Amino acid sequence: MNPSLIMSARDIEFLLYDWLRVETLTARERYVDHSRETFDQVLRLSQDLATRYFAPHNRESDLHEPTFDGEKVHIAPAVGEALKAFADAGMIGAAMDYEVGGMQLPYTVFTACMSWFHAANVGTTGYALLTAGNANLIAAHGTPEQVDLFMRPMLDGRNLGTMALSEPHAGSNLADITTRAVPQDDGTYRVFGRKMWISGGDHELSDNIVHLVLARIPGAPEGTRGISLFIVPKYLPDADGNPAVRNDVVLAGINHKMGWRGTVNTAPVFGDGRFTPGDQPGAVGYLVGAPNRGLACMFSMMNEARLSVGLAATALGYTGYLKSLDYARNRPQGRPLGAREGAQVPIVDHPDVRRMLLAQKAYAEGALALQLYCAKLVDDLRTATDADRAATLLRILTPIAKSWPSQWCLTANDLAIQVHGGAGYTRDYDVEQHYRDNRLNPIHEGTHGIQSLDLLGRAVTAEGGAALTALIDAMASTVTAARTTGDTELTEFADALDRAAGRIAATTAILWQDMNPETALANSAAYLEAVGHVVLAWIWLEQALAANAAAERGRGSDAFQLGKRAAARYFFRWELPRTAPLFDLLDSLDRTTLDLDETWF
Amino acid sequence: MNPSLIMSARDIEFLLYDWLRVETLTARERYVDHSRETFDQVLRLSQDLATRYFAPHNRESDLHEPTFDGEKVHIAPAVGEALKAFADAGMIGAAMDYEVGGMQLPYTVFTACMSWFHAANVGTTGYALLTAGNANLIAAHGTPEQVDLFMRPMLDGRNLGTMALSEPHAGSNLADITTRAVPQDDGTYRVFGRKMWISGGDHELSDNIVHLVLARIPGAPEGTRGISLFIVPKYLPDADGNPAVRNDVVLAGINHKMGWRGTVNTAPVFGDGRFTPGDQPGAVGYLVGAPNRGLACMFSMMNEARLSVGLAATALGYTGYLKSLDYARNRPQGRPLGAREGAQVPIVDHPDVRRMLLAQKAYAEGALALQLYCAKLVDDLRTATDADRAATLLRILTPIAKSWPSQWCLTANDLAIQVHGGAGYTRDYDVEQHYRDNRLNPIHEGTHGIQSLDLLGRAVTAEGGAALTALIDAMASTVTAARTTGDTELTEFADALDRAAGRIAATTAILWQDMNPETALANSAAYLEAVGHVVLAWIWLEQALAANAAAERGRGSDAFQLGKRAAARYFFRWELPRTAPLFDLLDSLDRTTLDLDETWF
Repeated sequence: MNPSLIMSARDIEFLLYDWLRVETLTARERYVDHSRETFDQVLRLSQDLATRYFAPHNRESDLHEPTFDGEKVHIAPAVGEALKAFADAGMIGAAMDYEVGGMQLPYTVFTACMSWFHAANVGTTGYALLTAGNANLIAAHGTPEQVDLFMRPMLDGRNLGTMALSEPHAGSNLADITTRAVPQDDGTYRVFGRKMWISGGDHELSDNIVHLVLARIPGAPEGTRGISLFIVPKYLPDADGNPAVRNDVVLAGINHKMGWRGTVNTAPVFGDGRFTPGDQPGAVGYLVGAPNRGLACMFSMMNEARLSVGLAATALGYTGYLKSLDYARNRPQGRPLGAREGAQVPIVDHPDVRRMLLAQKAYAEGALALQLYCAKLVDDLRTATDADRAATLLRILTPIAKSWPSQWCLTANDLAIQVHGGAGYTRDYDVEQHYRDNRLNPIHEGTHGIQSLDLLGRAVTAEGGAALTALIDAMASTVTAARTTGDTELTEFADALDRAAGRIAATTAILWQDMNPETALANSAAYLEAVGHVVLAWIWLEQALAANAAAERGRGSDAFQLGKRAAARYFFRWELPRTAPLFDLLDSLDRTTLDLDETWF
Repeated sequence: MNPSLIMSARDIEFLLYDWLRVETLTARERYVDHSRETFDQVLRLSQDLATRYFAPHNRESDLHEPTFDGEKVHIAPAVGEALKAFADAGMIGAAMDYEVGGMQLPYTVFTACMSWFHAANVGTTGYALLTAGNANLIAAHGTPEQVDLFMRPMLDGRNLGTMALSEPHAGSNLADITTRAVPQDDGTYRVFGRKMWISGGDHELSDNIVHLVLARIPGAPEGTRGISLFIVPKYLPDADGNPAVRNDVVLAGINHKMGWRGTVNTAPVFGDGRFTPGDQPGAVGYLVGAPNRGLACMFSMMNEARLSVGLAATALGYTGYLKSLDYARNRPQGRPLGAREGAQVPIVDHPDVRRMLLAQKAYAEGALALQLYCAKLVDDLRTATDADRAATLLRILTPIAKSWPSQWCLTANDLAIQVHGGAGYTRDYDVEQHYRDNRLNPIHEGTHGIQSLDLLGRAVTAEGGAALTALIDAMASTVTAARTTGDTELTEFADALDRAAGRIAATTAILWQDMNPETALANSAAYLEAVGHVVLAWIWLEQALAANAAAERGRGSDAFQLGKRAAARYFFRWELPRTAPLFDLLDSLDRTTLDLDETWF
């Protein structure tokens, strides 16, 4: 596949260098060994690996999804080869500390790199991503021995990792998990319980699999305050970290999904008795962090996981856009209005097809910019640069960066299919798969509804509303910058953004005026959607400004700049106005769902 | 499967009898042999057949889609059994004239019946629907001999039919089809060409397959004015209509779709030389209607086909709603806000889940009401009762009845998945398949974009805007009726509808003020979406009024009435306001897509 159909290297370059100025990160201690050259190298490497190892088996992994024979999970060999190439290139630990074997690449650059892999093959990338998240967590909260035994072998791909949180009766609601971890005299635990929806829960792609498992120690407090975190490996390692003894982790089965089929999704059972390591019942587990502090450990990782889900959604939206644009440029069909003769024209000439392409461009490029902006905040945190602001902004932007692309880049994939017409509904074209793959993103790592409760119930209320203030301040800076350009259209956009930011503040105040969570949170999904769209309008104004500035510096073509402007224009004319009725609805403290009796359905 | 998870018999009863008063149709000559009893019988029969024959193999047809071995298409036997039961019950010709072997059932009742089949199994129903459409067309435009030889055997299922319009290079654009039909001395034609996207194009489900093929007679005018319509059967029949000689219709292959897999979709080739009936090259075809009038014949059928697509989308949205409601009532997860202890509650208790259910109810029940309203207009046409008004209203409502459910009942299926959480993303739950099946509907029988051009470019401009006037008059009657109830909330809804109807009129005038189709049609998709939502608001106000009236007559439970009211409330508070920014955009004559250069993407 032509890499230009996977992601846009040109847009990534623009966002990283012309907009976010990531080369300035090399002035910070953590990144002092890096340079624009090393960034470009790893970006090019990612493009190459994604194109050569990930994209070619993307459809194959969909058509021939993993199978489970009751003992083993079978996965196409190309998946393992791609993961090996990824690990060999050092990508799993690319953004991690030197100290634990990483490359200390800025998270912003790493995020741009990962967009290539997600866009090329979200199923195979899933294993890499879970492993990186797992490794991060052990690096942050594990003992030095745990780092050596379990984490370091992840960096070269010998170990892959999972996050084993959900249980069959407790998906969104972790307070009710019942998996038990019984302490042993030697300091280890024996784990018993069933998990559900565990991606990468078994396979033969690596020597070992490291499950990070949430469980309760007997006697722990009820609810979320009694949950601890454990490493439960498929094989107990010997002193060198090599797999030695089979642990009692088996599968009850695997789930058959609509899409994202390349990542096997499993229902693992811990301690059901199939294996008895040390001649004792139970799966051997090692406590990570303090007892009953499991959720806190997990949440630091889950914030990154939420950004990753948003990035995956973004990348799928982006590649669908590029592919439908390519199709639209090459598919002749119909003629301009009024013309009855002459050759058919490429469908990109039809206004409604342009609308569908421009909408995709606005969603996908906007979402990518938001992802990279959030990643830059992670770098600010990691380098203790303006760290309070970064933490505060991340608090409010993370649920949006997770949900907005999950909703709108899925919409982009829907439009990509529509541009293809009937062809897009067949499995002969990639966009069909992207749409199915992308449908997972509004569900995993916290549903859309959960994210909306996090945003409205926690992020905007914490610390006297500091996060919302930080967000509105950031928007205000952009508004000022746009007004000082003297560009009439940018000033119009700035005025619209200013008004919309004002509505966020006003609506939030109205919702919480009585400090009644029931009323405040009743329509949280509408709040998430409205605030998300305003955030994206801000991101688009940022991009339009950066494109102008780049053009003034002689960087970039007119067409590129005009394309950014056109997408910003589309967003301000077609998308931002959608928020007005949502804010109106929220301001009315609408009780339609609250006052509903369940028998009325 | 429990029929109450397929469709709601209660809602159908309400819409048919309490709202549309279809029993009054029996006073009309055409339906004088019918009664509420016969209506109820055929409704119950449809429910039974759908439950017993159609629903059970719905997933099977998805998991094991039709295959083509180069010679034959293989389809699960259950499909043929279901179609046989359907035909044996007289359902294929249920709404057709006695004269050609039909039951002369009102189209409104027939539409309600068909909703059961679509909801149970849209793939298997596809064959029946194409056959009914095909039979209607031959009955309307064929010779008596064609009716006897090709149409009558459809009514008992011996023949199934196809519509062979699209070609590989001409999907939406029929003007450019190149299939040739060469006249022969005996009055028949020899047909040569390739078609694409032909559902039911080959199989062993029936004795014969009757293709209705658009083709050009050599020397015909270019474009749409030179297209003729032909019957091209798979087997040439003997004098009794039994298949006798293999005609030269073969498959180049079949298409592998995202969903709706049960209906085989094919690429047939006419006259490629595999068979030589009468020792001559070409597929034997029989002209239907006058030469070069093929599109006109086809369009009468295509209007019904558009309504059918809307109905299929509606039924999928409806059954997804019922299934996710059932799931939400039975899935315990989480607790009310603030509660940390006690048993988990069913997720139907959570406001955001209620929002997703209420939205589905509003989309699905609204769409079904619109379908039945349109069907009632077809009955008015067929019985020459207020026929001008019926034809005029159908002109403007048909593109909406096709597109609106295709968009919003797909959204309903998206929400049905979301209510299920991770489970909804697996192939263990029906909603996963409904979502994929429903994604076809915005594409076939004219894409969303094509429908929007039909609405704004033709329906609202024809005859001095008569159709728009009729629609707005119809809305005005409802507004008046609502205001006279004295019910404060209904009066509020009426006021909102009144304003929205005014916006349709004003926006339409603005768009066409310069009589410049390029400007007028540039944003036709937004127009379709805005007008569609206003139409549905009207339909919801109608339903709320009918539910009140029924309650006053002592019919129906409070819960049913309150449910209708709650869904209407949801629509007026959450949905109708979406139209304001769309009308604003349209009124601005936005040129974002027109002024875009293709190189800017």
